[in-house]
Amino acid sequence: MSIALEQYIRTIQDFPKPGIGFKDITTLLKEPQPFREVIEQFAAHFAGRKVQKIVGIESRGFIFGAPLALKLNAGFVPARKPKKLPAATVREEYQLEYGTDALEIHADAIQAGENVLVIDDLLATGGTAAATSRLVEKLGGKVAGLGFLIELDFLNGRRHLSRYEVHSLIHVASE
Amino acid sequence: MSIALEQYIRTIQDFPKPGIGFKDITTLLKEPQPFREVIEQFAAHFAGRKVQKIVGIESRGFIFGAPLALKLNAGFVPARKPKKLPAATVREEYQLEYGTDALEIHADAIQAGENVLVIDDLLATGGTAAATSRLVEKLGGKVAGLGFLIELDFLNGRRHLSRYEVHSLIHVASE
Repeated sequence: MSIALEQYIRTIQDFPKPGIGFKDITTLLKEPQPFREVIEQFAAHFAGRKVQKIVGIESRGFIFGAPLALKLNAGFVPARKPKKLPAATVREEYQLEYGTDALEIHADAIQAGENVLVIDDLLATGGTAAATSRLVEKLGGKVAGLGFLIELDFLNGRRHLSRYEVHSLIHVASE
Repeated sequence: MSIALEQYIRTIQDFPKPGIGFKDITTLLKEPQPFREVIEQFAAHFAGRKVQKIVGIESRGFIFGAPLALKLNAGFVPARKPKKLPAATVREEYQLEYGTDALEIHADAIQAGENVLVIDDLLATGGTAAATSRLVEKLGGKVAGLGFLIELDFLNGRRHLSRYEVHSLIHVASE
């Protein structure tokens, strides 16, 4: 039995600023059945990839990446904002509307040659996902794919991820 | 077969500032077996509580709270820093060393009478866990318990949680 996941996503207009329709996933998370369905759909899609690590992007990516890691019997690696991780890290910057920000993972989190999935809740412009993929490759890992609950097709974030397989469970065609 | 979880926790000296020995859980998360053991130990302990919602505290609490919600067939509710949640929220402040901070959950995240677990990676002074418990109660939920991977016994955070059942998987006796 398959569930239409879209119906559990709520759009909040003008958040975080006027003109933006924010995709709120908390209405999905609070119901066990659709939350479980998300993890099962990701697991079914990526099952053949021999995934050894899953990187979840801070912080909503943790919510899907951690259960998926357990489901696929992989390790979980948090990609975090600067100064959050305590040991030696690798870092990649990405563009914001104004300025730049960065993401880090621990340098010992991924071994050379490991197959790694990158998971987040939302694919928008693709900046954070591309930076996270570069972190994986800096450590010698292979990006086996990227998974998103929601993809905002109209922002074309895939153009920054063209070297990888991208799988999104929900597509939003227009603003 | 039970695993000694302690051996997977790494202590990083002088992070985030001199004199602090930071408990790094990423060395546990990157190994599927101890990560799974954490979720199974929480689930075994709280199995009889008829838990309907699990609140994970931003952001490392998401990593344990989300898989545990799926394991216990409960909904997942993120407790977040201010301005992160897009819909109507309830808010509670807590003390920092200098000043205050706050946590929020969505006002529709918990129904009156629901049994709720609060999950985080670390019990230190207990401020965030106590604030999160008050958020649950503001919405009429019952705090069925609090679960932590690590408890710093020497900080006696339990004194702020004396009305609740607190269960920690790893105890650190002294600094």
